[in-house]
Amino acid sequence: MSAYHTWNAGPVVLQSGLTLPDATLAYVTHGTLNAARDNVIVYPTRYAGTHDDQPPLIGPGMALDPERYFIIVPNTLGNGLSSSPSNTHPPLWGPDFPMVTHYDNVMLQERMLRELWGIEEIRLVCGWSMGGQQSYHWAALFPDRVRAMSCFCGQAITAPHTHVFLEGMKHALTADAAFRGGYYKEQPWRGFTAQGRAWAGWALSQEWYRRECWRELGFSSLEDYLKRAWDGAYFPRDANDMLSLIATWQACDISANPLYNGDRDAALGAITAPSIIMPGRTDLYFPPEDNAAEVARMPNAELRVIDSIWGHYAGGGRFAPDTAFVDAALRELLA
Amino acid sequence: MSAYHTWNAGPVVLQSGLTLPDATLAYVTHGTLNAARDNVIVYPTRYAGTHDDQPPLIGPGMALDPERYFIIVPNTLGNGLSSSPSNTHPPLWGPDFPMVTHYDNVMLQERMLRELWGIEEIRLVCGWSMGGQQSYHWAALFPDRVRAMSCFCGQAITAPHTHVFLEGMKHALTADAAFRGGYYKEQPWRGFTAQGRAWAGWALSQEWYRRECWRELGFSSLEDYLKRAWDGAYFPRDANDMLSLIATWQACDISANPLYNGDRDAALGAITAPSIIMPGRTDLYFPPEDNAAEVARMPNAELRVIDSIWGHYAGGGRFAPDTAFVDAALRELLA
Repeated sequence: MSAYHTWNAGPVVLQSGLTLPDATLAYVTHGTLNAARDNVIVYPTRYAGTHDDQPPLIGPGMALDPERYFIIVPNTLGNGLSSSPSNTHPPLWGPDFPMVTHYDNVMLQERMLRELWGIEEIRLVCGWSMGGQQSYHWAALFPDRVRAMSCFCGQAITAPHTHVFLEGMKHALTADAAFRGGYYKEQPWRGFTAQGRAWAGWALSQEWYRRECWRELGFSSLEDYLKRAWDGAYFPRDANDMLSLIATWQACDISANPLYNGDRDAALGAITAPSIIMPGRTDLYFPPEDNAAEVARMPNAELRVIDSIWGHYAGGGRFAPDTAFVDAALRELLA
Repeated sequence: MSAYHTWNAGPVVLQSGLTLPDATLAYVTHGTLNAARDNVIVYPTRYAGTHDDQPPLIGPGMALDPERYFIIVPNTLGNGLSSSPSNTHPPLWGPDFPMVTHYDNVMLQERMLRELWGIEEIRLVCGWSMGGQQSYHWAALFPDRVRAMSCFCGQAITAPHTHVFLEGMKHALTADAAFRGGYYKEQPWRGFTAQGRAWAGWALSQEWYRRECWRELGFSSLEDYLKRAWDGAYFPRDANDMLSLIATWQACDISANPLYNGDRDAALGAITAPSIIMPGRTDLYFPPEDNAAEVARMPNAELRVIDSIWGHYAGGGRFAPDTAFVDAALRELLA
């Protein structure tokens, strides 16, 4: 894990009604804030990821160029670095950590940007997967202050099928008796293995497996890939953290907040910032049709399908041509 | 469970090299064998299913018309009725039940047809899912005796992605410590729940969940559907039986036998019987592209996509228009 900063917001009332004392965001920044404070890019993190997963899209000459922009990467609540089940004290520790929503994430991030740097205007908010969900929230909650938005392989509102697939992941993890209702003495290793292996089929496409693209990642056989890339995928994580993130993901809905009171058309319609929404053609979580239905309700958005066989990972910086495709779209939004 | 017959084949050497004593096929028949013995339809069963799942495609006036045809439904080995981990005696009981392949299934079925009824000619072999896999095997192993074949939502050769998704199901089931390496005292209920809920996302399409088609099945909410249709889906089954079937499924390859020695082109090319292969447009296990690649190598086959949002269930008799689509194709093959 590379170095990161933390910002302690003090007690924060969450959407659930519970107060999180010492609500903390872990973050990193790339580049320098200019005097006008108008070169800010916000790039939140994905499920089971941290700021360390973001670099493929950041670099000199790329859209997210630290020589031009001040790029802020806030870690999502529950990811183990920002406030999470694993780092909060009893009685809000472990399985008793309160439910967190993306509304909570984004309101906290917005406060951090104001209080730490006096930032009011966001040049671009973008992200992959759960990071894309937060980007949607930013654009709907602060339509006058977000200048551009992009979500790659993510959604504004979690679709019922995604909810169901996540139910499977949750149950695969908690079927391990060592989980003990979240009061485990050590991590439920067997449950992690089950979750990892069950997740493997969802993350990459049928075609990706047919073409044995794991070879491009340096694995010697399909079993070698499952064993080394997935069986232990969650071992460095905390089970309650993973469940907290899944709960946030399942609850994702840009209208489920005091601004929109469940009016999804109003929330999507409020996103006036130029937006490019990029589903992966073969993403099994977020099929292009779901994003198409969202884009149809957004006044200034474009659907741009990543024609990739890398499934959900099309947006994740694993495959250079996909990364270049995303980078080109972000460049347009910043032009 | 409706009444069924059993046929005891005595000791049978399986492809694995192990001998199954008292190898038994459970079966039902519909209709009457004619004097020429040329009105035979073979219709094997699916994963976690029995002969009781077949009726939607059988009936007077349908393609599988018991007034015209002698329809034989053999239960797949491992399904709990034919020889299975749960009904075989030690030392081949439970987790020590030998690996069974579809080659084993079909060779045993072929012997049963000859020994019980003197049947040499099969007018049609057809099936859904694992039943479709067996249909492919029949047509490749007995090309001179099978007059027509149809596989709906199934494959000749298990694709790597399907292998991976089944790995997830296996691990969700066995993550439950009550599984005890297969030597359980009672069924691993929590593992069954995990497998059921993890399976729910694979069986039906994203669109099916988006449109809340569970309402058509009589459920009151998504959670009601998951709870009543999936959480307990495997409770009447046996865990080792389910794992035996998964192993058979994962090993499915019509060329993995002494006739073809792994030559997939030769095995597919040998299927000269007119065949209609019907993938579901939204089937997440068996996408149309996989069947298309198979059909391209078969001399007399047609790909006919079921344009349904019922995912894998398009072939399973749950939705009347899909059933009518499959029935019409079978009618053509029998014309």
